Amino acid sequence: MAVTIDPARVEAHLMALAQFGADGGTGVRRAVYTPEWVAAQAQVAAWYAAAGLAVRRDSVGNLWGRLDGTDGGGDVIASGSHIDTQLPGGRYDGALGVIAGLLAIQSLREQYGRPKRTLEAVSLCEEESSRFPAANFWGSRAINGMVAPDEPETMRDFDGGTMAAAMRAVGLDPTRVPDAGRTDIETFLELHIEQGPLLELAGLDVGIVNAITSLRHFVVKIAGRSDHAGAVPMDLRRDPMAGAAEIISGVIANALAMGRPAVTTVGRIEVLPNYPSIVPESVAITVDARHPDPDAERELLARHEALFRAVAARRTLDISWHTTADHAPAVCDPGLVRLLEASAAARGIPTMTMHSGAGHDSQNMATRSKVAMIFVQSKDGRSHTPAEFTSIAHATEGITVLAEALHRLAY
Amino acid sequence: MAVTIDPARVEAHLMALAQFGADGGTGVRRAVYTPEWVAAQAQVAAWYAAAGLAVRRDSVGNLWGRLDGTDGGGDVIASGSHIDTQLPGGRYDGALGVIAGLLAIQSLREQYGRPKRTLEAVSLCEEESSRFPAANFWGSRAINGMVAPDEPETMRDFDGGTMAAAMRAVGLDPTRVPDAGRTDIETFLELHIEQGPLLELAGLDVGIVNAITSLRHFVVKIAGRSDHAGAVPMDLRRDPMAGAAEIISGVIANALAMGRPAVTTVGRIEVLPNYPSIVPESVAITVDARHPDPDAERELLARHEALFRAVAARRTLDISWHTTADHAPAVCDPGLVRLLEASAAARGIPTMTMHSGAGHDSQNMATRSKVAMIFVQSKDGRSHTPAEFTSIAHATEGITVLAEALHRLAY
Repeated sequence: MAVTIDPARVEAHLMALAQFGADGGTGVRRAVYTPEWVAAQAQVAAWYAAAGLAVRRDSVGNLWGRLDGTDGGGDVIASGSHIDTQLPGGRYDGALGVIAGLLAIQSLREQYGRPKRTLEAVSLCEEESSRFPAANFWGSRAINGMVAPDEPETMRDFDGGTMAAAMRAVGLDPTRVPDAGRTDIETFLELHIEQGPLLELAGLDVGIVNAITSLRHFVVKIAGRSDHAGAVPMDLRRDPMAGAAEIISGVIANALAMGRPAVTTVGRIEVLPNYPSIVPESVAITVDARHPDPDAERELLARHEALFRAVAARRTLDISWHTTADHAPAVCDPGLVRLLEASAAARGIPTMTMHSGAGHDSQNMATRSKVAMIFVQSKDGRSHTPAEFTSIAHATEGITVLAEALHRLAY
Repeated sequence: MAVTIDPARVEAHLMALAQFGADGGTGVRRAVYTPEWVAAQAQVAAWYAAAGLAVRRDSVGNLWGRLDGTDGGGDVIASGSHIDTQLPGGRYDGALGVIAGLLAIQSLREQYGRPKRTLEAVSLCEEESSRFPAANFWGSRAINGMVAPDEPETMRDFDGGTMAAAMRAVGLDPTRVPDAGRTDIETFLELHIEQGPLLELAGLDVGIVNAITSLRHFVVKIAGRSDHAGAVPMDLRRDPMAGAAEIISGVIANALAMGRPAVTTVGRIEVLPNYPSIVPESVAITVDARHPDPDAERELLARHEALFRAVAARRTLDISWHTTADHAPAVCDPGLVRLLEASAAARGIPTMTMHSGAGHDSQNMATRSKVAMIFVQSKDGRSHTPAEFTSIAHATEGITVLAEALHRLAY
């Protein structure tokens, strides 16, 4: 008999976890190292223990639940996601993957007993950068030795407090971050909500992820000359707003012209001085550009940078840009992708194989482990909002695929 | 012998007035009804008295210096400008016109004695809306009966305090605003810095203003759908930033296509939520559109509004806009314009006749009085900044034209 996942249990765990940091209605505010985060990790620890897993908190607050295999080998198959949220986020982003790892391993143990190979569920401490803007997947970076020694003391939250102080406040020693590093995780599988509309548009509940997009963030500053909005003729202006508008239209057109899956977003603008009757002196915009294929990413970025130069030169504006984030694409392990596809097919769950346009902890796990991901449908493609929603039926199907794959790997 | 203006006196007065609210270097911060404003008006009152003028403070704090004419008639010829500044502004915007009215009348009295017709110098309390965003030329509106009864109690400054409270704090009774109204000012002449580059580009020190531009402020709100910057393909987005960029480029192109003196400025943007990795849910922009000709203004606004509709419809965005300021063009009195031209010519000062692209107290004075304005060259067209600069030589030429014209009118 194939492993079964109880939808009632999925729902009960999701709703229980959503109470930690509940923000009215369906919203959740649960930033790393806050009291609500501590309470949520304590709840997950209690669940791990009740499921028969050995509980361990590592030096950055990632929570692990371990089910030792009979083969005595050192390599581990792990599954989980992050426990923190946007401010506010919803009930599913991250949380569903934490619960998936727990319930998949718990169900396997209940239905099949002890595995041959060691399984671990994990609740990663931080992914969203919603408290520390530079945290940047803190939990999975620590596991993979990607945290620089000075980060705990130099990284600051939106209120100016250091990461080190926030860690100490919850009983963690910031000098011991390297102790969270692991080299024994052979395989990492992460279930996550899609955060986009493609599964829903395809009429599918579950997707298999074969690559995680690149991500490049530019901050582009365009400077001209501030002028009185009435007293300076149009033809004599060096208006950075005119240049910024042309660049915004241009980068969006570049991504559209390249076609799916190229994307580019201008989400943030800062205008100085930002008064209705003053031609601005400068306009700063963010440009977020992504593509899962490295060559196509280079082409997209080259088009964008050529546009920055051309618009500034033609309009005699000053322009400068710097990179604030730069993640290479992460390719999922082809064998794991095929395993997930086969596991879904065996359970009669139709899927499509797709890339992830969002970043995930799995991209950091990929530096030392084989990774792949399972997506479940997001209603209307929404995420990072209290309005995000994934049905219990879809979530249960995704966890079933995960459990089936773990069974094939570990038993 | 023609009336003479002493440049040393112009410079001494300008530098003395700039000390009230001095903000480092050449900056001045002098908002209405602040201690530095009280001190500045007290200084002007002392100068009026020393010049032999009868000093009166009206019910909103406009300061008047009167030199009664021998003909005993009731109609007055007045000249002045505003004493308040941007935060920070410079030493010239407003202040130079206050000093011009004082020194022109003082010099005429010293050199010609008492006039036939009554002359008044005025230091208007407020023009810049730099403390109360809705004050909107408070001083000249009060003189012309344009202040609504509820304004003192409902209008708030950037810190939330009411206009009424600010008035009481400097000994003014907000219930007595209507007492500032005057119907006996037959002629109002205002000297002001140009705030644009046209005189400098033409190699002229002084300009004569024959019209003050219209001004329309729209706030345009463009709403779409907020999406994850990575997970939603470009072709499925309803991105309000893309629509805003197209509208910004379009309104600027409309004004350029119509040619001088049409102008349009987008100076302010508010993006929600303004995060780099989120397609915005809405973008609000201000559109400042001006033209001194009423028919051309209507045409410019019609093109802008047609653009708003077309972009929103094509991109299936929601769009709405409302008007936050709407000033009709003010035409200067043709006879006064000719008088100023002739006065300049008689003194060997070359001028050009031009419109004002900025709003001025004169546009409110025009509702009850004949008005005209004298512009003096602004270095690099700068204003509303500590960097604004007008040479003492150019200022003295402008005041000479003003004094010559007042002599022709009053003696």
